[in-house]
Amino acid sequence: MKLGTKSLFVGAVLGALGIATVGPAAAAVSDETAYVFNTFSFLVSGFLVMWMAAGFAMLESGLVRTKNTATICLKNITLYSTAGIMYYLIGYGLMYTDVSGYIGSLAGAFYNPSEAELALLGADEATDEMVAEVVGNGYSVASDWFFQMVFVATAASIVSGTVAERIKFWPFIIFTVILTGIIYPIQGSWTWGGGWLAEMGFSDFAGSTIVHSVGGWAALVGAILLGPRKGKYAADGSVNPIPGANLPLATLGTFILWLGWFGFNGGSVLALGSAADATWMAIVYTNTNLAAAGGVVAAVILTQIMYGKIDLTMALNGAIAGLVSITAGPDLTNHFMSIIVGAIGGVLVVLAVPLLDKLKIDDVVGAISAHLVAGIWGTLAVAIFGGADFVVQVIGIVAVGAFTVIASLVVWLILKVSIGIRADEEAEVDGLDKSELGLEAYPEFGSGSQRI
Amino acid sequence: MKLGTKSLFVGAVLGALGIATVGPAAAAVSDETAYVFNTFSFLVSGFLVMWMAAGFAMLESGLVRTKNTATICLKNITLYSTAGIMYYLIGYGLMYTDVSGYIGSLAGAFYNPSEAELALLGADEATDEMVAEVVGNGYSVASDWFFQMVFVATAASIVSGTVAERIKFWPFIIFTVILTGIIYPIQGSWTWGGGWLAEMGFSDFAGSTIVHSVGGWAALVGAILLGPRKGKYAADGSVNPIPGANLPLATLGTFILWLGWFGFNGGSVLALGSAADATWMAIVYTNTNLAAAGGVVAAVILTQIMYGKIDLTMALNGAIAGLVSITAGPDLTNHFMSIIVGAIGGVLVVLAVPLLDKLKIDDVVGAISAHLVAGIWGTLAVAIFGGADFVVQVIGIVAVGAFTVIASLVVWLILKVSIGIRADEEAEVDGLDKSELGLEAYPEFGSGSQRI
Amino acid sequence: MKLGTKSLFVGAVLGALGIATVGPAAAAVSDETAYVFNTFSFLVSGFLVMWMAAGFAMLESGLVRTKNTATICLKNITLYSTAGIMYYLIGYGLMYTDVSGYIGSLAGAFYNPSEAELALLGADEATDEMVAEVVGNGYSVASDWFFQMVFVATAASIVSGTVAERIKFWPFIIFTVILTGIIYPIQGSWTWGGGWLAEMGFSDFAGSTIVHSVGGWAALVGAILLGPRKGKYAADGSVNPIPGANLPLATLGTFILWLGWFGFNGGSVLALGSAADATWMAIVYTNTNLAAAGGVVAAVILTQIMYGKIDLTMALNGAIAGLVSITAGPDLTNHFMSIIVGAIGGVLVVLAVPLLDKLKIDDVVGAISAHLVAGIWGTLAVAIFGGADFVVQVIGIVAVGAFTVIASLVVWLILKVSIGIRADEEAEVDGLDKSELGLEAYPEFGSGSQRI
Repeated sequence: MKLGTKSLFVGAVLGALGIATVGPAAAAVSDETAYVFNTFSFLVSGFLVMWMAAGFAMLESGLVRTKNTATICLKNITLYSTAGIMYYLIGYGLMYTDVSGYIGSLAGAFYNPSEAELALLGADEATDEMVAEVVGNGYSVASDWFFQMVFVATAASIVSGTVAERIKFWPFIIFTVILTGIIYPIQGSWTWGGGWLAEMGFSDFAGSTIVHSVGGWAALVGAILLGPRKGKYAADGSVNPIPGANLPLATLGTFILWLGWFGFNGGSVLALGSAADATWMAIVYTNTNLAAAGGVVAAVILTQIMYGKIDLTMALNGAIAGLVSITAGPDLTNHFMSIIVGAIGGVLVVLAVPLLDKLKIDDVVGAISAHLVAGIWGTLAVAIFGGADFVVQVIGIVAVGAFTVIASLVVWLILKVSIGIRADEEAEVDGLDKSELGLEAYPEFGSGSQRI
Repeated sequence: MKLGTKSLFVGAVLGALGIATVGPAAAAVSDETAYVFNTFSFLVSGFLVMWMAAGFAMLESGLVRTKNTATICLKNITLYSTAGIMYYLIGYGLMYTDVSGYIGSLAGAFYNPSEAELALLGADEATDEMVAEVVGNGYSVASDWFFQMVFVATAASIVSGTVAERIKFWPFIIFTVILTGIIYPIQGSWTWGGGWLAEMGFSDFAGSTIVHSVGGWAALVGAILLGPRKGKYAADGSVNPIPGANLPLATLGTFILWLGWFGFNGGSVLALGSAADATWMAIVYTNTNLAAAGGVVAAVILTQIMYGKIDLTMALNGAIAGLVSITAGPDLTNHFMSIIVGAIGGVLVVLAVPLLDKLKIDDVVGAISAHLVAGIWGTLAVAIFGGADFVVQVIGIVAVGAFTVIASLVVWLILKVSIGIRADEEAEVDGLDKSELGLEAYPEFGSGSQRI
Repeated sequence: MKLGTKSLFVGAVLGALGIATVGPAAAAVSDETAYVFNTFSFLVSGFLVMWMAAGFAMLESGLVRTKNTATICLKNITLYSTAGIMYYLIGYGLMYTDVSGYIGSLAGAFYNPSEAELALLGADEATDEMVAEVVGNGYSVASDWFFQMVFVATAASIVSGTVAERIKFWPFIIFTVILTGIIYPIQGSWTWGGGWLAEMGFSDFAGSTIVHSVGGWAALVGAILLGPRKGKYAADGSVNPIPGANLPLATLGTFILWLGWFGFNGGSVLALGSAADATWMAIVYTNTNLAAAGGVVAAVILTQIMYGKIDLTMALNGAIAGLVSITAGPDLTNHFMSIIVGAIGGVLVVLAVPLLDKLKIDDVVGAISAHLVAGIWGTLAVAIFGGADFVVQVIGIVAVGAFTVIASLVVWLILKVSIGIRADEEAEVDGLDKSELGLEAYPEFGSGSQRI
């Protein structure tokens, strides 16, 4: 279970077991009612996070050039599908079943309903014992699987934006298979699976580090190994901006992410079966919105000051950075601090994007800045504003980062030397849509005007 | 009520009547709490399915040419509106009120809150008897109406994509009036209204046959009567691909459909008032997602093998086919089987699209392949994987298909010989946007480049 | 609290306080369960209304010209962010805290969780008293803040569409600061804050007047002070239509608004903790959908009759007008009347758009017609169909209108004479994207074809 809310959750389970009940029967939430609330919360929050897959698809579709647009759409729907299947086949088990400290077990692979659930569902008449056994788990197993699955898909979505416009389709999908089936679940088991980082007290409520930085690290390694897009950096070191083809779609994608984030952070309360749970969830929604708003406003003001003009894409990345920043600690009880946390995230993204360009690391959509940089900041912010241990937070950031970088590097390198990861030069110039898909995303829209 | 979950639901109603309670009072879901859960589940699931109307609008907007884009938008918002009004005026009654076996009654037309509900809502102080009478129904009448209404709109949305780019606006809307007010409700009454197919044991949890195949059959008849778009099939029998104008929008539409499908299938559990109900809903969400993922992956791999390139539109149709395939039986308790069911759906759509082209049946968006073919498969899959009677499933498929084909044929033919259904040649060449709407969907985007 | 449902709500609170319980313990919703339902309803409804911000962004992106598209995207995400921060800093307090009749208090600014909530959340073990104190409020404070916040953002979104394509970015944002921090909250306190209009009996369930007309009035004043776009009205008085650049996006935006409106109206029941609450919410969903459908069908038929062609943008505005019309009274228990209320809204918008053009008031997206005109109609409809006092309804409309017009006029005028509100002529001709943002929304799409 995710750490930040563990105590709440233990309470719910104890309640379900009849060990402790809150308040007199007439006033409290019954155990079975809490089970329904908890399960439904996972489903509603889960469908919001699933919707973020569409958000990434639209954001990336808007920020690549027309000649690579259909390919990025295909990558996004395929990676979401792949993530779900891999997390079913092995990932969920490695992350949550019999976690020994550093890794879970394949005993949890091919997850299915629990025996108690099957007995209850298959019974002509449910006995009290059947109901009590199912209810004792606090929520349905499938609802937890669904909610955890959409998180791993988010991590994979982050990668696709950074490496767009030059990576070949199949190597990217193979990387996604390993990322979602093995890399993400292993490091996830360290904290949310109850492993060594959880025992140390590492605090990452909804995944600034565990989801967003992991995606960002994997993207960073991929971007470095791939190299920049042709024409992005001139020989004299100057940066050639390559504008996105469809900014309203990028804006739509950002709004979708913002909406989905209420499920991402709110659902990570992991329970809705008591007044305390519901209150926590409402606090998380409020902080999530304020941090995103802070990120936008900070990015808009800063770009106005720095450049004299306001870059829409920076405002969008400001929103995302604000959201990532609050993700490690959206349970602040001083809401004003959420604005500050998000605003610092917005500032960081405005500074990080040109910095990466100076390092000639070509990140098509700014995902490394918005997810990795802001993810690190958000994880540290829990120590600054939320009372977590600063050293432990740093240990968590470094450990997860080191593992993800090394594991990603191995996978990317194997792919590079075997089937190759980069499209050949002609394919890149013509666009991946033509070379890999044999079609155009916008066949009627001024195809002669592509600039680079 | 929908059949697959009838037994669950009966339990909830019995509970509400005080005939049976699950577990001791302190642990169980109270009757009124179950009423709130059931009603809220219909509303949340219903708004997700309503959102599918936007999904169809975007999918179809992306797959037609620019010159017909505004028209397809207009058709989609008008058909959704028409469906809601017609289902209110007569459809709901014909489907669910006093079903005699083959048809319901107009006594349920102009549906309004029940007398018990009006008494409760109008009372200064609700008596225990008032509450008990309302709660005894299990859910609010309006929530059920809302949930059922969005299903009929889905059936109508399926038709619009197939017959796009050549059908005139008003005949299409008139067909929608009949489809949503009469044809869909009558066949719906046979199963979900408790009619003859329900008595025989026909099993179609959320409507692979009742919603998706019905839309597909009506679309098939329309496509045959309309004939193909000008230039689609050459005299020598070769097929001229007519690419969609905006593939990111088509991708967005597919993600919207995927999201909405959680409401479509999950809400079809028809109850959320017990641990068993919530567990079923979570199982349905999980299977729905895995089947869609299976459909995508199967379609992507198969197109790579068959054509050496990956067609994005096939991946999108693979997702839809996977979703349609699992719709008749999303309550499988072996989740792995859902991947298989969806993957077979994905394979079928990849094979069916070129087959229809060989038959010179011009389906602009592939809806017949994705909704009718996969709908038939999904209905049979319930016999193969879910224990339904194979013969009964075939009888249901054939009966619903025959009725829908004949009824649609009569309506389409009457429209054809009276006001005509096909736009004249000049209008088709110029595009329906110009001829029927007098405007352009993208007036500033390279209007000179339309190919056909 | 919002008036229309006050009695229900009082019931819930009394229940929570143990003063009255509905039915025997085994059948009723427990107080804490009701608290969870009420809170979760605010969160789910709230995220739907938040999503409307994306709807306005897409609607407006689709209806402006390409050269102003990135700017309208930037305005929309920045205004939503600004609204949230301002409502946190001062708006919520002015609207709901210690309302003296005409205005609330800054004591509610910088809102944070209540002391009781903090005690409950911080306790190692919650006592019965702690739970009872929190539950006694009926819902979590943060959930109410979140739900109210998204409403003020909606009001600001309405303004941005009308004044698009010629207003400078920063003056618009400054106006948003005042509108969302001060103007909206003050008039909101009169009714929903329990002020003088509430005491008089003014009835505006979800805000036809309080949200939509307020946005519309502010937009009207802005449009008059700004003057029309260059080239919109010829010297001879003829109107030069300036078509929107991307109608599928406008259609998507409308569908998003429709979806969000279920939260807007449904959440305004303000409670989900009893059979009566749930039944009301279902009734509101049903009426909301039927009114929107009525608006579409009326607008489509009327434009066909008046012009011989069907304008897609009128159908979209018909949907919005239908939704705005039912917003003051979506709790009608005769659903058929909702179709009528919405259809009249659809007719009004078709008539109002050309009327404003005659008056040379340039409303880029038709927001004044759809939100202000239909908002007035919807508020009167509560008297006609819902039993409210007609005179009181008129007083509310006039009072809110007069206050908003005067306050907006003052703010717009100060901005006009200080920093200026209108982009200079060259910037308007080149497009705001180039002059204010230094980028293009669609850099690869036929940039030479912009007409005006």
